[in-house]
Amino acid sequence: MGHVIVDVMPKPEILDPQGKAIAGALPKLGIEGFTEVRQGKRFVLAVEGEVTDAALASARQAAETLLSNPVIEDVVSVREASAAELEADQVQGASA
Amino acid sequence: MGHVIVDVMPKPEILDPQGKAIAGALPKLGIEGFTEVRQGKRFVLAVEGEVTDAALASARQAAETLLSNPVIEDVVSVREASAAELEADQVQGASA
Repeated sequence: MGHVIVDVMPKPEILDPQGKAIAGALPKLGIEGFTEVRQGKRFVLAVEGEVTDAALASARQAAETLLSNPVIEDVVSVREASAAELEADQVQGASA
Repeated sequence: MGHVIVDVMPKPEILDPQGKAIAGALPKLGIEGFTEVRQGKRFVLAVEGEVTDAALASARQAAETLLSNPVIEDVVSVREASAAELEADQVQGASA
């Protein structure tokens, strides 16, 4: 079974209050050196069978109609999850 | 100026009601072929200067203390943003 990853971020010209709050909180935790934080969304879609071009096209359609609000957000990436990315998920899940 | 990307996902054993709602809505929009959807978060942190090992270590600390709730979420990735990833952001932002 394959997986598709969709990344959605607020458009650069849109204010991101959550990101701003995080950027303001970091120095209070002693974490310095970051000038801006933007918060977006990451979706993992499990595909029946292999990740085909058709599955990627369906995921792109989902990304643009349901997973993002095109007025304020950009779909920055729709791609097949690499083995390394899935392994990271599983390893960290297993160690929990 | 460099950027660090932090990906956070709900742990596999944690119920993800938003992901479930999306998975239920996709067929109603005529988008078929996906068996499960999980929704997580993606953060982009702007770094003063280059993305050094120290900056990545700071980002990892931020990911584990502020950007994720370790009871229900896994930090699945902390990495320097590639040029291609940033270009996607800029191109899509510019075309908006």
